[in-house]
Formats: sequence, C-alpha cells, structure tokens
Amino acid sequence: MPKPERRYVITFGCPDRTGIVARIASFLADNGGWIVEAAYHTDPATGWFFTRQEVRADSLPFGVSELRARFTEIAAEFGGHSSWRVTDTGERKRVVILVSKEGHCLYDLLGRVAAGELDADVSAVIGNHADLAGITRAHGIPFHHVPFPADDPGGKQAAFAEVRQLVDTNEPHAVVLARFMQILPPEVCADWAGKAVNIHHSFLPSFVGARPYHQAHRRGVKLVGATCHYVTADLDAGPIIEQDVIRVDHGDSVADMVRKGRDVEKAVLARGLRWHLEDRVLVHGNQTVIF
Amino acid sequence: MPKPERRYVITFGCPDRTGIVARIASFLADNGGWIVEAAYHTDPATGWFFTRQEVRADSLPFGVSELRARFTEIAAEFGGHSSWRVTDTGERKRVVILVSKEGHCLYDLLGRVAAGELDADVSAVIGNHADLAGITRAHGIPFHHVPFPADDPGGKQAAFAEVRQLVDTNEPHAVVLARFMQILPPEVCADWAGKAVNIHHSFLPSFVGARPYHQAHRRGVKLVGATCHYVTADLDAGPIIEQDVIRVDHGDSVADMVRKGRDVEKAVLARGLRWHLEDRVLVHGNQTVIF
Amino acid sequence: MPKPERRYVITFGCPDRTGIVARIASFLADNGGWIVEAAYHTDPATGWFFTRQEVRADSLPFGVSELRARFTEIAAEFGGHSSWRVTDTGERKRVVILVSKEGHCLYDLLGRVAAGELDADVSAVIGNHADLAGITRAHGIPFHHVPFPADDPGGKQAAFAEVRQLVDTNEPHAVVLARFMQILPPEVCADWAGKAVNIHHSFLPSFVGARPYHQAHRRGVKLVGATCHYVTADLDAGPIIEQDVIRVDHGDSVADMVRKGRDVEKAVLARGLRWHLEDRVLVHGNQTVIF
Amino acid sequence: MPKPERRYVITFGCPDRTGIVARIASFLADNGGWIVEAAYHTDPATGWFFTRQEVRADSLPFGVSELRARFTEIAAEFGGHSSWRVTDTGERKRVVILVSKEGHCLYDLLGRVAAGELDADVSAVIGNHADLAGITRAHGIPFHHVPFPADDPGGKQAAFAEVRQLVDTNEPHAVVLARFMQILPPEVCADWAGKAVNIHHSFLPSFVGARPYHQAHRRGVKLVGATCHYVTADLDAGPIIEQDVIRVDHGDSVADMVRKGRDVEKAVLARGLRWHLEDRVLVHGNQTVIF
Repeated sequence: MPKPERRYVITFGCPDRTGIVARIASFLADNGGWIVEAAYHTDPATGWFFTRQEVRADSLPFGVSELRARFTEIAAEFGGHSSWRVTDTGERKRVVILVSKEGHCLYDLLGRVAAGELDADVSAVIGNHADLAGITRAHGIPFHHVPFPADDPGGKQAAFAEVRQLVDTNEPHAVVLARFMQILPPEVCADWAGKAVNIHHSFLPSFVGARPYHQAHRRGVKLVGATCHYVTADLDAGPIIEQDVIRVDHGDSVADMVRKGRDVEKAVLARGLRWHLEDRVLVHGNQTVIF
Repeated sequence: MPKPERRYVITFGCPDRTGIVARIASFLADNGGWIVEAAYHTDPATGWFFTRQEVRADSLPFGVSELRARFTEIAAEFGGHSSWRVTDTGERKRVVILVSKEGHCLYDLLGRVAAGELDADVSAVIGNHADLAGITRAHGIPFHHVPFPADDPGGKQAAFAEVRQLVDTNEPHAVVLARFMQILPPEVCADWAGKAVNIHHSFLPSFVGARPYHQAHRRGVKLVGATCHYVTADLDAGPIIEQDVIRVDHGDSVADMVRKGRDVEKAVLARGLRWHLEDRVLVHGNQTVIF
Repeated sequence: MPKPERRYVITFGCPDRTGIVARIASFLADNGGWIVEAAYHTDPATGWFFTRQEVRADSLPFGVSELRARFTEIAAEFGGHSSWRVTDTGERKRVVILVSKEGHCLYDLLGRVAAGELDADVSAVIGNHADLAGITRAHGIPFHHVPFPADDPGGKQAAFAEVRQLVDTNEPHAVVLARFMQILPPEVCADWAGKAVNIHHSFLPSFVGARPYHQAHRRGVKLVGATCHYVTADLDAGPIIEQDVIRVDHGDSVADMVRKGRDVEKAVLARGLRWHLEDRVLVHGNQTVIF
Repeated sequence: MPKPERRYVITFGCPDRTGIVARIASFLADNGGWIVEAAYHTDPATGWFFTRQEVRADSLPFGVSELRARFTEIAAEFGGHSSWRVTDTGERKRVVILVSKEGHCLYDLLGRVAAGELDADVSAVIGNHADLAGITRAHGIPFHHVPFPADDPGGKQAAFAEVRQLVDTNEPHAVVLARFMQILPPEVCADWAGKAVNIHHSFLPSFVGARPYHQAHRRGVKLVGATCHYVTADLDAGPIIEQDVIRVDHGDSVADMVRKGRDVEKAVLARGLRWHLEDRVLVHGNQTVIF
C-alpha cells in the first residue's frame, strides 16, 4: 500500500461552549491548513467537547513544534481543564509487547507489521516465559525473557522493575499486554496511564479476572467476546477501546470457545491498537471517544 | 408460505452410552418412520446425551398417543434419569404474553403472528398497564389489564394471583415476559418452569437487574445486547436460549442505546420463542442445547 | 422518550478546498449558534467535501427562513456546484408507504411509529392488494387500494398515475417501497429522486431482480442480506443507504431464508428510513455519505 | 491444548429413504462404537441424505482399514450413487499453500499452525514471487519460488506443471490458494477437485474476478466480505464453504476496505480450511453441507 502523505493530528477536549469549532477551523484556515479528516463530539452527559483533526503537513507554513506552540495558546483560551495533543505522522510509532506463553496475539501483530498493515515499529517483545523468543527474533525484533517467580513477592517486584526498565528505555507510544497474564502493580499502571493497552478475553464487564472462557461456558452464554482497554489499577475495569463477539453454541467445549475467542481477541486488539497509534482514542473519565 | 406437513417431534436426554442412536433409529425404521430432521449432542462435561428427531406423521402406522406409549418403554431402557417429550405439530401452540408499557416486543410478536411467520396462537395479552390494549384488540386478541399497586405487597400478591389464573386458564405452551418489568414470585417461577420465557435487555451476565442500558452507557461498552432466557427464581440467571448484540459508540446516548437495543431484543425474543415452540430447546442444569 | 429540543439541520456539499469548515463554523459562532452535532467528510476520489451540522434552534437569533436566506449566500461563495439543505426538526416528517401483500415491513414500521421510536407521520399506505388495509386502519392511517392489472400496460399506467397522485397529495418527505413488488416507471423515479426509498431482499449487487432468496439458495451462500437504497431508473442499482446480512446454513430451505431475511429487511429499512428522515444521507453520484 | 483422543470420521451421502440412520447406528453399536459427534441432514430440494459421524477409535475392536472394508458393504446397500469416506484423526493432515506477494493469509495460517490451533502440517509453500520465502523458512517450512512469466503462455504452462509436481509430491489433503492470484488451468482444477481451497476477497457472487474491493468501493456497498470456496474451472463459482462480512462506510477508501477485508479473509479461510481438514464439508452439486 502506498505511504499516505505526512499529516499533523490535533486532538482536543474541553468544556463545551459555542465557537470552539470556529476558533480551531479559522486558525487552520488562516494558515492555509488543509483538513483531511475532522471529527467532533459533544457529550451531553458531561458537557464535554471533543475534536480530532488531521491536517496535511505540507499545507501549513510551519512545522510541528510551531503548530504546538500556537495551539497551546488556542487551548488556553478554552480554560485550564482543556486537554490536547498534536502529533506528527512523520514520526514513526514505537510499540513494546508483553507476552507470556500463548502466542496468537503476538503472531497476529507481527504478521500485521510485516505485511505493512500496522504502521509501527515493534521495539521489543518481553516475555515472562521464553516460548515466543523464536518467532520474535525471526522478525528481527529483540526478545527479552524476564521470569516471574510464582510465589515470591520480592522476586516478582524485581521482575516488574526489570520489565519496566526494558519498556521505558524504548520510550514506546504503546505498551501492549498481548495476553501477558501478569497483573501490573498500581504504580506501573499509573506510569503507563493512557498507553498500556490490554486485551481481555471476555466481553467486559462479564467475566472479569481469570479463566473467562470457563466462566462463559459454565453460564451457557451464546456469544463469547474480547475487550481491548487501557490498563488501570482496577483489574479489567479501565476505559474500553474496542469489543467484539463471536457466536458459540452447546456443541462448543471450553477449548472450542478458547479457539473461537482467539480470533476475536486478535481482531479487537489489532483495531484498538491501530486507533490508539493513530491518536483516534480520547479518554474522558472511564469512557473513550473513538474518532 | 405453504403449511409444512404434520410431524412428530421427539426430544430425549439421558446419560450417554453406546447404542442410544441405534435404539431410537431402529425403533423408528422398524415402523417406517421417515426422519425429516435429526440432531444429536453429547456433552463431555456432564456425560449427557441429547437428541431431537422430527418424523413425518403420515409415515408411522400409529398416532401420537401410541408413539408416546411406545417411546415410554424405550426411554425406560435408558434409566430413570432420562427425560423425553413427544409433541405433534398438528396441535397448534398457544402463547400468553405479559407486558407493561413498552410495546416494541409486543408489536413485533403480533406482527409475526399476523404475517404467518410465527406459527402460534396468542391466547391473551396481560398488562399491568393498559397502554397496549388497543393494538392487542386490533389483532383480535383479548387484553386483560391487571394493575400492580406499587407499594402494597398484599395488592401485588393479589395481582400475581390474578395474572396466574388468567395465564393458566389458557394452558399455554409459552408465557412470554415481553418487557413485563415485574419480578415473578418464586412459586410462579416454579410453576411455569421451562415455559416462562423472558427477554432481558442486556447481554447477560453483564448488567443484571434494572436499567441495563444506563449501566452499559456508564461502563462505556462498545456493544449492547439482549438475552432470551427461561425464568427462574434467580433474577436474570435462568438458562439462556439466545443472545445477540449491536454496535454502539460514543455518539450514542442512553436513549440511542435503548432504541438500538430494542431491535436486538425483538429479534432475540422472536428467535428464542420460535425455538421453544418448535421444541428445539433442551434444558440441562442451567444450560440449554438448541437443536 | 423525551422529545429532543428543536434543531436546525444543515447539510452541505461542494468541491473541497481550505476554509470551508472555518466559514460555516464562524457564521454559526458569530450568531451564537450552538452546534449539537457536526460531521465532515472529504472524498479523495472525487475531491468533494460534505458536512452536516445540527444547531439548537433556540441558540440562533433568527428563524429557519432567515437561516436559509443567509446560508444561500454562504453556499454561493463555494461555487455553483455546491448543494445544500436546511431543515427544521420542528416540522414533523411525512411518509407514504407503498405495499403489496407481504406485511412484515409495514407491521414493523407501524409498530415503530406507534412506539414513538420513528418520529414521523405515516400519511397514507397504498397497496396494489388490499391485504394490509386492516392493520393500516387499525393504526388510524388511511389505506388506498390501487389494483395493478397484470397484463395490461395501459391499466398499469393508469394505476401508477393514481398512486402518484395519492402520494404527491401528501407532499411526503419519503416514499417507502416496503416490498411493493412493482417497478416504478422512469418518470416516477425521476420525480421522486432522493426520496423514494426501497428495501431489496438481497445484499446488492448480488441477486438483482426477482426472487433473490431462490437465487441465494441455488448459489449456496452462507449469508443472506438486505439493501435499503434510493430508487433510480436502473433496477436495484440506486445509491445504497444501508445493508446487513444474517447467517444461513445448509439446513435452511428457501422458506427459512425468507423468514430469516425478513428480520434483516425490517432492520435495514428502519435504519435507512430513519437516517433519510433525519437528513443524515447525502447522495453524491451513485454513492451515499451517511452522517 | 490437550490432544483430543483418536477418532474415525465417517461421512456418507445417498438418496434419502427410511432406515439409513438405523443401519449405520446399529452397525456401530453392534461393534461397540462410541459416537462422539453425529450430524444428519436431508435436503428436500434434491432428496439427498447426508451424515457425518465421529467414533472413538479405541471403542471399536478393529482398525481403520477394517472399518473401511465393512463400511463399503453398508454403503453398497444404499445404491451406486452413494458416496462416503472414512478418515482417521490419527493420520496428521498435510497442507500445501500457494501464495503470491500478499502475505496476510500466509502469516495467519502459519501463526495458527505454530500456536497449535490448526492441527496440520504445512508441507510446503509455493510462491510465484519470492517475497514470502523468509517467513516461511523461519517456520521451518520449505519455500519454492516458481516464477510465472506475465505474457508467455508457454512459460505459464511450464510454471503450472512445476507447481503441480511440487504440490502432488506432498500428497496434500488440502491445496490452499492463499491469495495466489493465478487462475488454475481446468485440468488442474479437475485434478485437485474437492481439495483446492481458495479465498476470494468478496462476498460472492458479488464482485467476481479482479480487484473486488475497487468494484465494491465504486458500488458504494456498506459491507465488504470474503468467500472460501472449492476451486472449479468456473472462476469464483465453486461450492462455497464459508463467508463473512465486515462493515465499511463512506470514510473508507479502497485501501481501508482492503485492510478491513483482510481480517475477514483470514478468518474465513481459517474456518473453511479447518472444516475441510476435519472432514466436515460434504459437497453436493455446487453446494456444501457443513457438519
């Protein structure tokens, strides 16, 4: 696929009032900014306004730093509670992936990157088991094995410290928990807030926690699903980015549900991660706006 | 649509062992029985065997009572725990529908019956409000208004007694709670076990109880759903017959979720009720086999 | 559901260039216009820009005629090829429905209107058969029976003239062909361009023309679908508004496909009609933008 | 996942009549055969009967050759038109995959095999381009590059001869055209009848032939899909094994449709191939029964 032209992406949120669209659009128009994609949303429940704009980089007479500088002033006009970000698609996004033994999500993500479908660099893969070292390295990506001792809180803490250091060294735009199976300590959740993306193998809020397919089988549900969400200190309760489901029936054993569910996990994680990397996800409280 | 020819439907469940299929199939074959549809399932978790057979009525040399008599003996060969039923599609099914104020499920069911798509008689509609009397009677169906006093346990008990009497008079094959909004007392659940069919407006087990769309909106889910299940004394926890979901996004208010969800409720209830009336649903513990 | 507050809806399309959003947004902001919902789209293939804006009526210091007058000038700035519309949600939409014998879509639409879910008046239902007169009149809506002689072109022409006159008298915002089964003459298609909405019982462009479920069964497809589209002189080839599908399998006869497909037809028609009546559908060439 | 126990799979089709189920079931029961899974279907349109049975290998007192010998006699009782097969899950299935440049389906299949999810050996991958040699060999699988000269019919014929020889050497149970982009000559289609599985990137019969996503974009459809089917001499017209769709909208360019569609292609191919390898697909005329 041809490389799309370079763009600046502006995301902005603030308490709603009249004139916000006009202010931003006029600022861009006055500088010749060619808007390629624009989306707006007002949430009546919270009275919050959200927007995302994609502008052709070559249509503006200045670069991304100047755009940021000028946008800082605009954002300030809308009060101290506004939040915004200006990113440059010319800067390639970096991803670190955390895994355990199950490889389906990792195989899927590496395949997408190799096929040019997910436009990002996987800087490193870190596993608490070494099972997935081979495929990772076959893609030319460093694999780090950090064992997590099962019943040793101190050892676990040390392992997390090592993972954290390995992750942070890469300054990633996303830390993907691709069926990592270890619960992040609260301080790591806080540190990686808004960039740690998890895939949970159920349609949340159903079946929080361990062995959701077993829970689903016991309850006799007719669909199983998966949820991609930002990691927070509350287990499986962070802002949801994407969800989907697949049909199961009485003929499906737990193993069949696991197999069918994996297809949903892969697709949901890939979509959620793509939107995150394209700066399409705006978080407000425990909800997301997906532009 | 042309009326399908008359059939006998045999459903049977027992602990699995070899020879069950051979026994039933040989019995039918020995009597010239023409099997039009047959389904089998063995549940490895419980070791239980299930089957459903549709036989052309005119292929057997005897009627449904004789078929029942002969099948009693066959079932007995497979032990005291087996359960079975023989029904005759020549006997038209009767349905009683319980409603409150919201009419979308009732409109949908009446439309399906009128269009000849749901092959059953609606014997009566009972509402704790009178809002849906008009459309019911326009279809030539009796409507009974049984008010439920809000804060008067005694009055509520009397109302339930009246509902029960009105229902039982019709000896229905299904009692449909089409957004009835009243919780059935345990003894009514017990009495109507296996024939009281409820539609719950969420993808259970998520969002049990009241105002599930409000709960869903607050949690920020990306799909809302509906569940058709048998009513048991445990609220919204009975055996699930059918479920489905529809996509929502950040632009959807609670009112939008309600509107989108209604389409799922209608479709899920219609499918679940059809399967129930066609004797396609076999209940085992808290799970269903849908043939 | 509570009545939403009154709004003005602006839709606009023109060749893309910088500054369009700024111009419209500034015009609204300068007049205190409170934008409740806004959507933009640029089609790179055709170089066309589209927008739809919903503004709170009470936020503007003038009424809908003045808004139209002022917007005429703005639209003119963007050249002779631009197209636009300003509508007022305070004016209730009128719909005329054309039917034949099959009632499932009519039942569905009438149920939605009665339940307050489709915010429009059904001014009249016209049938080339009288089968659906009863249910229509039960909803208090006039039903006109206009027979179409099968092998008499002159009689057919006269029938179409009568239908047309009955439709046009009501000045409807939408003419819904709810499984009407008669092919509109080209001049009627031209007259009703952009407001005649058809439901076709296949996932177009598969299975154009008659008996699509029979065609689908013969081809052995694993999904059947439905398509809601604007009527044009090319049979089943007009701009598509909405489509959906449902799973079928080898066990489904043509009659089963018809039954399953009906659920899709109803849902797809209802969504398509809603979007049309809410001025969410912008047509460009043979494609639609759905805001 | 634990290895399921060894099973024999019997598939059988013949003109319908009474007593078929009884005959097969009695034969199995008389020999102590433990049926783990059984499915039956009668097609009223063609009057054909189909069945598939899975029997625990250790429940029978003889091996697969004896089972085949005995089943030959049973099949003969039902006439010369019957067709049947007995396979042994103890014999691991072999797959050869044909590819071109696009790797998404190959990555997906290799990932599934590596994750133990698709229980088969990939004997070889053959490409008319060499792009996918690296990933194939990283999985320890031989890759053969057979260039297809563009405008040289003789060269093309020679290339096909080489592909054929490379395929046939492996005696595969399935030849997967994973976006191979070359049209198989009729004699190869005939030779590989019932084992050449193609993935076409549209919801057939819409958009046969080249560049289906471009066709879909031009028509303005609201869903794109994929079809897994057996290859026959009629292009994209063979018996359909599986299909699915994904939603697109006006904001999706052809490139977006390609990307979204790939997820459907991968899932549909994987499901279709799994069912083929598990002997769940029975072909009758141009239709399939999927058990």
